[in-house]
Amino acid sequence: MTDDADIADGKVYLVGSGPGDPDLLTVKAKRILEDADVVLHDKLPGPDILGMIPEEKREDVGKRARGERTSQQYTNERMTDLAHEGKTVARLKGGDPFVFGRGGEEMVYLAKHGVPFEVVPGITSAIAGPGVAGIPVTHRNHASSVSFVTGHEDPTKEKSAVDWEALAATGGTIVVLMGVGKLPDYTQALRDAGMDPKTPVALVERGTWTDQQVVTGTLDTIVEARDEAGIEPPAVTVIGDVAAERQNVLAFLENDRMEDQS
Amino acid sequence: MTDDADIADGKVYLVGSGPGDPDLLTVKAKRILEDADVVLHDKLPGPDILGMIPEEKREDVGKRARGERTSQQYTNERMTDLAHEGKTVARLKGGDPFVFGRGGEEMVYLAKHGVPFEVVPGITSAIAGPGVAGIPVTHRNHASSVSFVTGHEDPTKEKSAVDWEALAATGGTIVVLMGVGKLPDYTQALRDAGMDPKTPVALVERGTWTDQQVVTGTLDTIVEARDEAGIEPPAVTVIGDVAAERQNVLAFLENDRMEDQS
Ligand SMILES: C[S@@+](CC[C@H](N)C(=O)[O-])C[C@H]1O[C@@H](n2cnc3c(N)ncnc32)[C@H](O)[C@@H]1O
Ligand SMILES: C[S@@+](CC[C@H](N)C(=O)[O-])C[C@H]1O[C@@H](n2cnc3c(N)ncnc32)[C@H](O)[C@@H]1O
Repeated sequence: MTDDADIADGKVYLVGSGPGDPDLLTVKAKRILEDADVVLHDKLPGPDILGMIPEEKREDVGKRARGERTSQQYTNERMTDLAHEGKTVARLKGGDPFVFGRGGEEMVYLAKHGVPFEVVPGITSAIAGPGVAGIPVTHRNHASSVSFVTGHEDPTKEKSAVDWEALAATGGTIVVLMGVGKLPDYTQALRDAGMDPKTPVALVERGTWTDQQVVTGTLDTIVEARDEAGIEPPAVTVIGDVAAERQNVLAFLENDRMEDQS
Repeated sequence: MTDDADIADGKVYLVGSGPGDPDLLTVKAKRILEDADVVLHDKLPGPDILGMIPEEKREDVGKRARGERTSQQYTNERMTDLAHEGKTVARLKGGDPFVFGRGGEEMVYLAKHGVPFEVVPGITSAIAGPGVAGIPVTHRNHASSVSFVTGHEDPTKEKSAVDWEALAATGGTIVVLMGVGKLPDYTQALRDAGMDPKTPVALVERGTWTDQQVVTGTLDTIVEARDEAGIEPPAVTVIGDVAAERQNVLAFLENDRMEDQS
């Protein structure tokens, strides 16, 4: 911890942008984006939300890395420096800042460096992506739990494998983030773990964006469906009986930004 | 499905209220609450959000049950009737409509009865409750997955038990909803499944409400901590190493509605 003299005059808001539709920003996030001196962001919030922020206060830290620093180190230091200069900083993250967003690491860095901060939750794409496509992640009759998991594990981790067997054994819905590329691997792992190959699966690409795309299939067919539709990141994979609900409601689902592809 | 003649002129919005802070309503939810003819709700959105809605268009369907009908049947029929009368209906649910909210069932009922509907995701308390308390549900170093689970299973279900052993085996964060009363049972089940009794646990009651309360402990101590603090529903239980992050950041966490109890 720092002593009193080191406490920054500025402040950092760790803000979730939601899945991409500007209408799904929270009232609070919208106000903070308007009032902040600087908005540090990457590409994930999407073009419509980034387009709302005046150019002169936007800084894309997504790819920025100087010298020995990683992009994450750069972001941490930039937030901290700006706050110590007395600035109000919005650190804008796609979805919710604490769902696979490194918000936890950033928060700890800020506290360690004397920067007051506030957490502004956002709607995670892991729930809203499926949701606007007519897929409820839980269901009283066939999903008493839902697990969010990364499809792209940190390869430097010692125990690098997500335990797909344990996830299958929960019997609940599984939502995979960052899982477009490794789709063949984990659908195979889940079948190997004894999951029914006919288990419904859906891919929701750019959920709530104007160019949202949804494809459905099963553990057996979804890789082919992905390839045919040309699904690319960012997308979430929903695995479980709930993925089949979409077909039951599609005729009456009127989410306004959606194109109907199924 | 219905034939064309039966399609309702009105429409139902399945709207998530977020965890309770009106500032965490989405821009879209706020507009729909203003524009709707009728808002059907229960108590979960909390006093601040319900207080924003004019009395004359609010209908509390939470406890309503007439004759043989359950509250859920009443809600389904009421939404459908209003839509067929040409009304714009907001069906307001705490958090996100598709996270343990029966939104999935309501959506299917609407589609079966010819009612056009739109899903308006909200911020789930399962992420925002921990989040505003300084607890990230995922973390690159110690949580590659997070599972949301009900602590209060539907007792009429055949396989009534959530598989706590499988959840423990995932190695990820576990967030329990509706789990204040059964806290002794599932903390025991998780220890029986081999989880370290020193695993950090936090309870977040009324997350983002003005009277939010947070207590922390371990699998071994949290029941006593719950009793001492008098934690009551609605609250979420966060189980996993991430629950310990709160202590690392609390001195700099400035979420404005929070009282600091830890
Ligand atoms: C680094 S993670 C960040 C997740 C984010 N914090 C959230 O809560 O949505 C990036 C992944 O989120 C998912 N994602 C983000 N926005 C999405 C969207 N609009 N539609 C579908 N998936 C999305 C994709 O799986 C993507 O690979
Ligand atoms: C029927 S579930 C509905 C969950 C809701 N759909 C959501 O996404 O937050 C009700 C449970 O949600 C949790 N909950 C809802 N609002 C909460 C809040 N503000 N703080 C903590 N827990 C909350 C509690 O576990 C409560 O028992």
